[in-house]
Amino acid sequence: MKAQPTLTDGPSDTLQVLRDALRVFAAERAWEPFHTPKNLAMALSGEAGEVIEHFQWLTAEQSAALDADTREAVALELADVLLYLVRLADVLDIDLDEAAQRKLAINASRYPADRAHGRSDKYDKLG
Amino acid sequence: MKAQPTLTDGPSDTLQVLRDALRVFAAERAWEPFHTPKNLAMALSGEAGEVIEHFQWLTAEQSAALDADTREAVALELADVLLYLVRLADVLDIDLDEAAQRKLAINASRYPADRAHGRSDKYDKLG
Amino acid sequence: MKAQPTLTDGPSDTLQVLRDALRVFAAERAWEPFHTPKNLAMALSGEAGEVIEHFQWLTAEQSAALDADTREAVALELADVLLYLVRLADVLDIDLDEAAQRKLAINASRYPADRAHGRSDKYDKLG
Amino acid sequence: MKAQPTLTDGPSDTLQVLRDALRVFAAERAWEPFHTPKNLAMALSGEAGEVIEHFQWLTAEQSAALDADTREAVALELADVLLYLVRLADVLDIDLDEAAQRKLAINASRYPADRAHGRSDKYDKLG
Repeated sequence: MKAQPTLTDGPSDTLQVLRDALRVFAAERAWEPFHTPKNLAMALSGEAGEVIEHFQWLTAEQSAALDADTREAVALELADVLLYLVRLADVLDIDLDEAAQRKLAINASRYPADRAHGRSDKYDKLG
Repeated sequence: MKAQPTLTDGPSDTLQVLRDALRVFAAERAWEPFHTPKNLAMALSGEAGEVIEHFQWLTAEQSAALDADTREAVALELADVLLYLVRLADVLDIDLDEAAQRKLAINASRYPADRAHGRSDKYDKLG
Repeated sequence: MKAQPTLTDGPSDTLQVLRDALRVFAAERAWEPFHTPKNLAMALSGEAGEVIEHFQWLTAEQSAALDADTREAVALELADVLLYLVRLADVLDIDLDEAAQRKLAINASRYPADRAHGRSDKYDKLG
Repeated sequence: MKAQPTLTDGPSDTLQVLRDALRVFAAERAWEPFHTPKNLAMALSGEAGEVIEHFQWLTAEQSAALDADTREAVALELADVLLYLVRLADVLDIDLDEAAQRKLAINASRYPADRAHGRSDKYDKLG
């Protein structure tokens, strides 16, 4: 018995709980044939588009002070993005957690804190 | 001491680990001013667009049988989506895990297993 | 001989010139099998994602004052969007010009100038 | 008086007609402050996302044989993409027609008909 679960220690991690729930959800509805990586990539992109529609006419300030209804709607859109993301990773047999940790490390080396300080330039422009 | 961690029981959950890591990452680089919800929604959508570019000319079958290089590239794009998603939820103070669980429940009621069986119709067309 | 060409009067209209050029382009490369509506919709979305990446970290003001290199890069991304849009409409046998005129009329009735004045609300919220 | 209008010869070209109509539309509603390039890039991407949602669960074959209702809905989504694209180009003072012709020429040199024949590889992989 572990007192300190690690990142990947089992079914209690959110990403794994969602992955498993989505597998069951798809199986119960016989949706696996629709869940090709190509189709799920489209669904992911479509949901990201719905997120953007909530923000497109807002100023930066307004986007940080959403009214309760919009914030709730955005929460459910972000949930949609997460669900399709987890499902897409699953059908591709990609470990999202591991990939995210790896990408964080890449970003840390691409964007050294001192050179990237206060700059939004892409890493290949940081000079 | 808990033997059974719950979904939200602490810093060991992937989504929370990533959230905290991204906070530190942004703070170290003084990137918070760039990380408005509006900007992060754009970044999320841009990354979803990069995912899609890997799949656009593939057949459904090809999309399920990526070569190793493409699969690795896709893994890092999915990681980018996850990182921006977690960061966006954080700056909006949205609990992604809770929202995803809630959306799953909504989907379960919108798509009853019997009526949605083998159909990709949107819920308002399930009749 | 016409002095006043109409919107749809022939091969000199930009949208039709591009449509015809893209048909030839695809035929010369035997790309028609790749140009399914589904694939072209993905390509369109991927290009829109590339547009967004140029703007995601810019303030509204900066987005209206692009440096020459960025502006040139954006021009070519917009061109990509237009090319895939024209090609997608063509394979679906949709008359883009006609559809755009029709949508403009719909928008004019959804957003009466007086009620929509200075407001970015969606039409169903204009009250 | 010209018998042979050129691509850019005046207000009868669809892209210019739409550009002018959108200028009037925005001015009548005092929407110019919302129409920053950043915001319009988001709107463009959001509309491309709506296009994709129509196709995400369809097979390639189904995507080429839309029922009448879906085809009509897609036509209006494509119109939305075109309208935002034209408006975005206008506020950036980008000549879409010229950019598209230029991009076509770039594509022709990147994808020589013989080497690109029947291949969907990106130009940097054509060898």
